[in-house]
Amino acid sequence: MLAFTVEHRALKQTSTRLAKLRPGWALVRVRLAGICNTDVEILRGYHNFRGTPGHEFVGEVQEVRGVSAAVKNRWIGKRVAGEINIACRAFGFRPICRFCKRGLTRHCERRKVLGIVAHDGAFAEYLTLPVENLHVIPDSIGDEAAVFIEPLAAACEILDQVPIKQFREAAVLGDGKLAQLIARVLRSALPRVVLYGKHPEKLALARPAKIATKRVRGDASDLERVKEKFALIVEATGSPTGLALAQEMTEPRGTLVLKSTFHGAAPIETWPIVVKELSLVGSRCGPFNKAIALLRSRKIDPRPLITRTFPLEEASTAIAFAQEPGVMKVLMRGRK
Amino acid sequence: MLAFTVEHRALKQTSTRLAKLRPGWALVRVRLAGICNTDVEILRGYHNFRGTPGHEFVGEVQEVRGVSAAVKNRWIGKRVAGEINIACRAFGFRPICRFCKRGLTRHCERRKVLGIVAHDGAFAEYLTLPVENLHVIPDSIGDEAAVFIEPLAAACEILDQVPIKQFREAAVLGDGKLAQLIARVLRSALPRVVLYGKHPEKLALARPAKIATKRVRGDASDLERVKEKFALIVEATGSPTGLALAQEMTEPRGTLVLKSTFHGAAPIETWPIVVKELSLVGSRCGPFNKAIALLRSRKIDPRPLITRTFPLEEASTAIAFAQEPGVMKVLMRGRK
Repeated sequence: MLAFTVEHRALKQTSTRLAKLRPGWALVRVRLAGICNTDVEILRGYHNFRGTPGHEFVGEVQEVRGVSAAVKNRWIGKRVAGEINIACRAFGFRPICRFCKRGLTRHCERRKVLGIVAHDGAFAEYLTLPVENLHVIPDSIGDEAAVFIEPLAAACEILDQVPIKQFREAAVLGDGKLAQLIARVLRSALPRVVLYGKHPEKLALARPAKIATKRVRGDASDLERVKEKFALIVEATGSPTGLALAQEMTEPRGTLVLKSTFHGAAPIETWPIVVKELSLVGSRCGPFNKAIALLRSRKIDPRPLITRTFPLEEASTAIAFAQEPGVMKVLMRGRK
Repeated sequence: MLAFTVEHRALKQTSTRLAKLRPGWALVRVRLAGICNTDVEILRGYHNFRGTPGHEFVGEVQEVRGVSAAVKNRWIGKRVAGEINIACRAFGFRPICRFCKRGLTRHCERRKVLGIVAHDGAFAEYLTLPVENLHVIPDSIGDEAAVFIEPLAAACEILDQVPIKQFREAAVLGDGKLAQLIARVLRSALPRVVLYGKHPEKLALARPAKIATKRVRGDASDLERVKEKFALIVEATGSPTGLALAQEMTEPRGTLVLKSTFHGAAPIETWPIVVKELSLVGSRCGPFNKAIALLRSRKIDPRPLITRTFPLEEASTAIAFAQEPGVMKVLMRGRK
């Protein structure tokens, strides 16, 4: 279990952040933040990040610097979600990097990432982001659904990477928070999605969303027991053993999307990738507009994935609770 | 060093093969055969194949069974290369498998593979293949070039898998036989190709083909020293360390083609694939027609890659020689 003390950092940071707000940046008060496995990894020391974690949030714009009064008025008081990759231009770097030039700002060479790389995140009363990263949340989407916009966008990234209409079905390996969102996004585009997971109580969450479920053991014995093959598979187990099973389950010329970002080298046989001519597609952050559209249309309701909501003041308790077995999404609510 | 005694097997097989020739199959006299690293792997016990290896060849059709006299006359005496994957329909299996139904006969679920899986190969006086696997070699392509059609087709597979016109340059990791062919095929479509290899004398073979070369050490120290990044990289080192370097050298959203089929699990960090959103594309056998067209047009001349030619009777010497340092393609010539 990892502890995290948000209270002191948050209070200390509020005033300094206001003072340091760059032109084109907004100060956002955090209304609701979600705990992601990446946050836990960060607290375990991965990413070498020592700042405030947290990158899933709904917030309210408090202040905007260096824009016209009209632009400022349009933003102040708005409920927003925020893209987490902060491109070089937002820090005034010139010239902007070759990836930003090509519009790939999420792959900016000098990017900072909210709560992950060199920029304090959402487990605090306030955060700052460039205005260009913000998306206004429609009134019809409540905070509890909107807090899922960031991970849901990551799930939607698959729709931008894979020609989804060429497939009739897909499998998702893993029954955790991200896997569940991915299965729902794929199900919004495909008639059949099968979620393979270890935990009966987590698999049960998927079935009301018309997702088929199959139980696996999550170890090497699955390689012998799982016989079904798919042309499209998403590996989202968060564990090294998932990839071997995913490779085995992908049919020749099939597509295997990788979503797990666990750290540490896993022993992998690569020759099946070559012999079966698989395509492995790494997939990270995605389009917020698609995620917002899916929530607004009610095609996806992520709220059944919420296990519990804590006040932000109890961040360390919340983060400890998020690591307990069977717990899905844990939220933290900011002060009004 | 591995020994292989071809003489007895070859002589013994000739008569039985003639007797067992299936309808729609051809008996082919081997004129020239090439030794591939896969053959050496097979002799080391991989693929669990105990038959005659060899899958790169130029041959002459001696007999065809179960076809009309007109078809037969069109084939007898023709100089041919042969696709190595033998689909289920050629063995009379009904119904044909779902991959063959989709035209993916190279991925047939019940395929046999010449000299690799359950079907004797080209290191013999005669081999058999279905007529549908044969390609007539134009007179303008001599045996020494034509014997490269099979591995050259495997290199051409990349052109079928990757939208090559979207790239301006590519890197190939590895300076072995297959890597050299891949670099030449990519160079036929791109203005700049860089071959990264360990062996100065092998790199030197690439430069007359207008391929840039860079020397690496082939160990983990390359990760620190190689700074250039590419949007398209082909990993053809045949060694587990190649993949880590290839991942490092592939720029975000880049394509990494895997051609190495070494056996054994290599420890691989998969999170860079996810964070950089790389596409890894496994690539195996390819289109013979493209390989033949490249040879006919003289855009590629593979003959400088030949180190030495042995008579087929000296197969065990040839295979031992093929494993010596610095040796590139070793050929074996059949009896007239």
